[in-house]
Amino acid sequence: MNTEERTEHLIREAGELMLGFRRLEVTSKGRHGDYVTQADKAVQEMLMSGLSALYPEACFIAEEKENVTLSDGLTFVIDPIDGTTNFFRHRESSVISVGLTEGKRPVEGWIYNPYRGEMFHAALGQGAFLNGEEIHVSDVPTGNALVYLGTASYYEELMGLTGLSALRLLPHIADFRRTGSCALELCDIARGRAEALFEWRLQPWDTCAGTLLVEEAGGRCGHILEGEATFAGPIPFLAANQAVFDEMRALLKSVYEEWSAQPWNQQKKVF
Amino acid sequence: MNTEERTEHLIREAGELMLGFRRLEVTSKGRHGDYVTQADKAVQEMLMSGLSALYPEACFIAEEKENVTLSDGLTFVIDPIDGTTNFFRHRESSVISVGLTEGKRPVEGWIYNPYRGEMFHAALGQGAFLNGEEIHVSDVPTGNALVYLGTASYYEELMGLTGLSALRLLPHIADFRRTGSCALELCDIARGRAEALFEWRLQPWDTCAGTLLVEEAGGRCGHILEGEATFAGPIPFLAANQAVFDEMRALLKSVYEEWSAQPWNQQKKVF
Repeated sequence: MNTEERTEHLIREAGELMLGFRRLEVTSKGRHGDYVTQADKAVQEMLMSGLSALYPEACFIAEEKENVTLSDGLTFVIDPIDGTTNFFRHRESSVISVGLTEGKRPVEGWIYNPYRGEMFHAALGQGAFLNGEEIHVSDVPTGNALVYLGTASYYEELMGLTGLSALRLLPHIADFRRTGSCALELCDIARGRAEALFEWRLQPWDTCAGTLLVEEAGGRCGHILEGEATFAGPIPFLAANQAVFDEMRALLKSVYEEWSAQPWNQQKKVF
Repeated sequence: MNTEERTEHLIREAGELMLGFRRLEVTSKGRHGDYVTQADKAVQEMLMSGLSALYPEACFIAEEKENVTLSDGLTFVIDPIDGTTNFFRHRESSVISVGLTEGKRPVEGWIYNPYRGEMFHAALGQGAFLNGEEIHVSDVPTGNALVYLGTASYYEELMGLTGLSALRLLPHIADFRRTGSCALELCDIARGRAEALFEWRLQPWDTCAGTLLVEEAGGRCGHILEGEATFAGPIPFLAANQAVFDEMRALLKSVYEEWSAQPWNQQKKVF
């Protein structure tokens, strides 16, 4: 096997490990609805150990550890179980997300859904694939769009903005969906089963692999207010197909302006 | 086979018919995001024809036909494909929902997920079952609850109320989920994978079978503002486990009062 095949093999093995856990010990990470289990830690450990052997020069940023600043070198950005609450609630909607950055931009990404044996993979300039078959975003326009509603539920200071976003967007789209796994939802956008996802705060490990997947499948990702998606820290994140991206960004910017103009928000700097 | 076994066999066959459709013809039903395909109609036709033979005395209320008033006699209340948009978007989150009422109350209910071969069944006073195994709601309290956010997306006049509900509820619960199939979500509540579902307008075919399933699994269903769930027409609907129901109803009532007090709502009677 070459390095790429070994990487994929390792991630599939980590999926087996994840599904093998029976008695889950759930621990709060302190914020609203933010949990970790021993399975998250074990999957992260297996991935970091295996990837260190395959890519000795790489650094690691991962959800369940203390992290260094993203550098220009080769860096894995990992969410061992994206959708931890789904995982311990047996909802079968959780994935492993492994992004690889160079020059602070994703150059390769894997998202694995162990419940369905679905491996999503993208490499910069080479397209997006599901179990080896090329995938593409939809061309469905905003008026018929299914939009993943990111609730930023760990952050109480953003709930007003999230609620206002739901209120203002719904008349413009077909409907919302929400699975509770951002990376799984980015796979759905990349394969054309939904059109967009937004969330007012997402972490690099939520978005790194999925951003490359959506872009290589023909879609766009970015900071909600302006510019590209970045992976050095949390940002307000938007992903969409080409038909929807600009309109969704304009709608969300006007929501943010409306919300920022509320007197009770003046003391808070949220971005 | 007895009548009950024949009924279940018929519904599983209808699931096969549903999955067999390849080229879907999608037609708007006029309202925002409300669609029908030839598969919805064919599944409904198969169910009505088969159930008429098994229950010659029964009446039928179903999503894709003109309906009569719910009477006290034996009446099937059917959604041939609950989650039509999911169905034609290949999202694999759609179910067949068949409720049976007598005296205007559900006495038996079947919900079938053909993608997973999962048959949910409840009969009044006899419990709730998934493929023959008894299922129960969770005892997770409101603060840790996963709540299905019903968007009432066909009804533009309710979008403000829905958005306000999202805004006000999120700080009190763990998070929202949304699949786009109400009946599928009621199955999840009945099996303890989520705690509650609310939507400011749901039709009898969305809720009839699922109400009995949730109640027989130990949960509660009702009109959001007061009293029991009814099936003669659309109502604001709430389903939840015992730990969550009263608190969720109180939260939603206060949202409704806040929304009703807005000057721009005074002319509208929505319930």
